[in-house]
Amino acid sequence: MTSTYRAWTLVKRAEGLPSSDLFELRDFESAPLADGEVRVRNEWLTVGPAMRVRMSAETRGYLAPYGLGDPIPGWAVGEVIESRSADFKPGDRAMHQFGMRDYGQGPASAFEKLPASGAPEHYLNAMGSTGFVAYYGLFEIAKAKAGETLFVSAAAGAVGSTAVQIGKAIGLRIVGSAGGSAKGERLKEIGADAVIDYKTPGSLEDKLAAAAPQGIDIYLDNVGGEHLDAALANANPNARFAISGMIGSYNQERASDTMHHLNRIVTQRITIQGYLPYADRADLLDAFRERMSAWIADGTVRPWQEVRDGLESVPQAIEDLFAGGFSGKPLIRLNTEDARP
Amino acid sequence: MTSTYRAWTLVKRAEGLPSSDLFELRDFESAPLADGEVRVRNEWLTVGPAMRVRMSAETRGYLAPYGLGDPIPGWAVGEVIESRSADFKPGDRAMHQFGMRDYGQGPASAFEKLPASGAPEHYLNAMGSTGFVAYYGLFEIAKAKAGETLFVSAAAGAVGSTAVQIGKAIGLRIVGSAGGSAKGERLKEIGADAVIDYKTPGSLEDKLAAAAPQGIDIYLDNVGGEHLDAALANANPNARFAISGMIGSYNQERASDTMHHLNRIVTQRITIQGYLPYADRADLLDAFRERMSAWIADGTVRPWQEVRDGLESVPQAIEDLFAGGFSGKPLIRLNTEDARP
Repeated sequence: MTSTYRAWTLVKRAEGLPSSDLFELRDFESAPLADGEVRVRNEWLTVGPAMRVRMSAETRGYLAPYGLGDPIPGWAVGEVIESRSADFKPGDRAMHQFGMRDYGQGPASAFEKLPASGAPEHYLNAMGSTGFVAYYGLFEIAKAKAGETLFVSAAAGAVGSTAVQIGKAIGLRIVGSAGGSAKGERLKEIGADAVIDYKTPGSLEDKLAAAAPQGIDIYLDNVGGEHLDAALANANPNARFAISGMIGSYNQERASDTMHHLNRIVTQRITIQGYLPYADRADLLDAFRERMSAWIADGTVRPWQEVRDGLESVPQAIEDLFAGGFSGKPLIRLNTEDARP
Repeated sequence: MTSTYRAWTLVKRAEGLPSSDLFELRDFESAPLADGEVRVRNEWLTVGPAMRVRMSAETRGYLAPYGLGDPIPGWAVGEVIESRSADFKPGDRAMHQFGMRDYGQGPASAFEKLPASGAPEHYLNAMGSTGFVAYYGLFEIAKAKAGETLFVSAAAGAVGSTAVQIGKAIGLRIVGSAGGSAKGERLKEIGADAVIDYKTPGSLEDKLAAAAPQGIDIYLDNVGGEHLDAALANANPNARFAISGMIGSYNQERASDTMHHLNRIVTQRITIQGYLPYADRADLLDAFRERMSAWIADGTVRPWQEVRDGLESVPQAIEDLFAGGFSGKPLIRLNTEDARP
């Protein structure tokens, strides 16, 4: 039997910061469940900075542009309501990329079964690709050692807030950058030793010099631009920069960053490494999750999230994300009334 | 007995491109040779891009500014004419950093004895820090593998021309950037598969895309700026960038590079590493020299050098170096008449 689902679609290409009117909620029809497929009622969705790249007509990147009018994919967790696979039964919780809609359907191999206990939404945050980026950056790229100084951009964001808490647990001195004093206060509560407000007047370079007079050894970046330049200006010898995103350039058709300190790469022997661990190093996911679930269990990491309710809230959440309006990981909780069986 | 020597001194700080009138040749007096010291008559001097950094009042880098009116240090090779050390006897050849002058004097530990046979000037070029930068970048930083595509900036320069020849020997496809068709022709003779002339109209990004339609896997850079941006635009996944200098920013009090492709660091998972191997990894020098001397002996590497004659030629050589006027390593050959015993 066919069934319908409601999904957000991109109806025009983004230019600059994405606004909520780029999206339309549309009805789609699912084919009857084929052999080996499962169908999930989504409970939690999330939005993230990498979405912006795919809103352009050309990405030149690692993911293709969204098709105009097609259901937008995205990470989600939900409850299996129908299964024609031996791997899933109704009632199981699963994570998948058929998000931005109320129901997801596809081959069982596209779904990952989650433990019955625990908060499933953590798999969209600290237990998922977000937490893995923080973990991989600190341990595999930067090889962080107790006593070193860590600088984190977008520290009140999803990756950043996880990195601050892990960094604190392993004995790093931490400087976090965030916009506004409220985020800064919260950052200090979760372990940042010093905070930079990038929205106040003055150069980031000078603010970072004041917050880290001893220089920085590690930089976790998903912003780029002036933050990256400030990190270069304040890097100690043999500093390691782990770069997981450049949100600052996603909203430009042709990014243009004015850099004053690239020569420090040589004089300070800096290593700058781009990484996408969820795509490239899934072999380390189990080890990561074992460690992260222990950190969450003992309170070392308290996943920092901001929840919006209802499928209708997706476009505004996207707009707010790029305007810096979220603290922690943006999550969208779907209500029973979002789901039309 | 005291003795005199003539040495080039910096008499005013450089702003922008250094010109020959920043320098004056002055007489200095050496103290009598102390116990454990040696005195060398210099035969070969060299000039290099890193000198520019030290001509400024503040370096913020790894080497201190030159003192105004002091003898400028620099790499040199020469013949020991007097020794109060058991490690050296008159007639030995030695390499040291008491260059930019006719005689060098200091503790024996500051001198390295060179083999009696072979061309001593190669130790200022392919057998010295220049060749070591090319070797270390290709093998230790980039871990180059046959079949990969290498892009080299300043490919007709000292480091670049050595890298092109080593790269050819290990089976890389090589794209070199140089200014002017004469340098380009010579680059093809020594092994470059394709050549970019950065002086012709058009963007470097497009020129590199045309010269390396398959993208680049390795970038050896000592220029920075637009060359670095072009390399980012054309980098393959997991590309490695070995950065040994940024001559493009040395002549500016505050460098300002407009970069359009920094986000490629993430999407292509690029690693960018600054390195100064002569300072940091002297433990690998012997292995490097063993390999390089074999390459020179069998003709794999023909050290590319451009020789000027006489101590008086130093300031013009510095001016020409930064104007792109040299092919290969700039060497200054001192004549017997340069030396006043």
